[in-house]
Amino acid sequence: MKFTAQEVFDAYDRIKPYIPDTPLYESVHLGDGERRYFFKLENLQPVKSFKIRGALNKMLTLTEEEKARGVATVSSGNHGTSVAYAAKMLGIETADIIIPGPAPKAKEEMIRFFGGNVMRMGFDYDSAHAEGMKYIEEQGLTYIDAYYDDHKIYGGQGTIACEILRQNPDIDTIVVPVGGGGMSTGIAVAAKAIKPEVRVIGVQTEACPAFIKAFEDKVFYDEYPVTGDTICDATVGGCGKLAYEMLPDVIDDIIELKESTIRKATKFMIKDERFIAEGGSCMTIAAVMDYRERVGGKNVALVISGGNIDGDLMTQLLNE
Amino acid sequence: MKFTAQEVFDAYDRIKPYIPDTPLYESVHLGDGERRYFFKLENLQPVKSFKIRGALNKMLTLTEEEKARGVATVSSGNHGTSVAYAAKMLGIETADIIIPGPAPKAKEEMIRFFGGNVMRMGFDYDSAHAEGMKYIEEQGLTYIDAYYDDHKIYGGQGTIACEILRQNPDIDTIVVPVGGGGMSTGIAVAAKAIKPEVRVIGVQTEACPAFIKAFEDKVFYDEYPVTGDTICDATVGGCGKLAYEMLPDVIDDIIELKESTIRKATKFMIKDERFIAEGGSCMTIAAVMDYRERVGGKNVALVISGGNIDGDLMTQLLNE
Repeated sequence: MKFTAQEVFDAYDRIKPYIPDTPLYESVHLGDGERRYFFKLENLQPVKSFKIRGALNKMLTLTEEEKARGVATVSSGNHGTSVAYAAKMLGIETADIIIPGPAPKAKEEMIRFFGGNVMRMGFDYDSAHAEGMKYIEEQGLTYIDAYYDDHKIYGGQGTIACEILRQNPDIDTIVVPVGGGGMSTGIAVAAKAIKPEVRVIGVQTEACPAFIKAFEDKVFYDEYPVTGDTICDATVGGCGKLAYEMLPDVIDDIIELKESTIRKATKFMIKDERFIAEGGSCMTIAAVMDYRERVGGKNVALVISGGNIDGDLMTQLLNE
Repeated sequence: MKFTAQEVFDAYDRIKPYIPDTPLYESVHLGDGERRYFFKLENLQPVKSFKIRGALNKMLTLTEEEKARGVATVSSGNHGTSVAYAAKMLGIETADIIIPGPAPKAKEEMIRFFGGNVMRMGFDYDSAHAEGMKYIEEQGLTYIDAYYDDHKIYGGQGTIACEILRQNPDIDTIVVPVGGGGMSTGIAVAAKAIKPEVRVIGVQTEACPAFIKAFEDKVFYDEYPVTGDTICDATVGGCGKLAYEMLPDVIDDIIELKESTIRKATKFMIKDERFIAEGGSCMTIAAVMDYRERVGGKNVALVISGGNIDGDLMTQLLNE
């Protein structure tokens, strides 16, 4: 079934009472006489990630019986925290967040803080996923997908576009990090329904250009290797299926970025613009730094998808 | 004339359409089984400071004629930027922001970005102030006071209390940085009118405990020296007159804090809680670190008044 803008608009009505709009603030330093840049600050969500949008939209459409049985997911990162927090907001008592056995204690604490029941399984993400899915099925829990093909998740993430174009109707270009593709697909579908002339530009790191290669090779890479060091840990990995099918029709360009520029962009965001953002989020800023003309536009929104950067990495970047 | 809570409530109605509520987010790391701590994130105002509240409230009460003539102030910091931004929002064309001759270029750029007309006068703050006030009078501009005794400014800053107690009615203690005293007085007056049992605790740095000494010595210190290094540049200086008269009746305690703890608290806020805040703002966190029992409370709001910390200082703190 095709994913439509109406699913995003419905999601927006659904989640709006639960999470306030995140700010769209103009960059103090990126603009020039010709172009203005606006940060869409998803790093200021209570869980410091846009992923709360999809999780909330999904859970708001569960039946009372499904809610009573509970929800679960496999993720030690932003998605896991978001599922925990959304469940807490909606009074869903069981929210089992399955993380790989060796995941850091700090990630576990974060999920617990937002109300999740942390369960360690397997020895890496794949084995945690295999064991986790078996457990979820046995317990009759509702699995909350991160980015693969659940329309409710894509719909929730897409609500970012509704806010951007309401907050500044002059926006003509939206730059968005592409990880599994849920957010970028949701945003592109919704943005073009609201304002057909808007351009949507995706960005990926050179360390894992899964979608860029998938479209070049015409192959659906549901897994994709990470080559070399990356600070974009939240946005690496394989393609979501629905995103693979839909993105080519709705996105105008996908740009591959150097890790060295992404590091510079993240330092710039923290030190000069004074917002804490993850490396993966700051790809949108890196795109402006290295490809200002290719990004184009007069009023450009840069989606800053999350703010969960490791404290030691932050210190290291500021020292570079 | 006595300053009343009604002036804060009126200010809240007045400024609400112009600035969205700032978030009240629970600290992930400060709480224990007994006490919970909530950051009131004024560092997320578009100008990264609470000062926009007072500036906006003042300008919304000017006559059309006064608006047409224009506004001015003397400040190279958060107040100057806030006056510039408030004027821009309200379509007040002339907003002259007078800064001392040697003030850093970066501060000038920030004020310009938010729409202010920067004028350099004098060789330090005092001479800028003297020359500036003469200029303002000659030009017939409306002077926008920072903290001395303008009820409209105190009223605007106090709206922080309205938001805190609406966002979490369980808050029983509010910890607030005390600089000139406009914010602390406004908050204390309003908070106690809304919920009489709320305790309001002020905090000052050992580098400039102007109010603590003023109350001890029973002397109005409209100027007060800074001793030793401080990272609380936004909250040092003399007392506001209205604050000096009113604070003793409405505040429950004022705590003097060590600069070493304030540095630690600022590093903690950036690195662990992942919000960028100024040193002066992080005094409220430092108070919890060194005086948890004295601060007391079960649900404690810590006012984080601003986020304009110098990038090099930030790097230095993270390396400590």
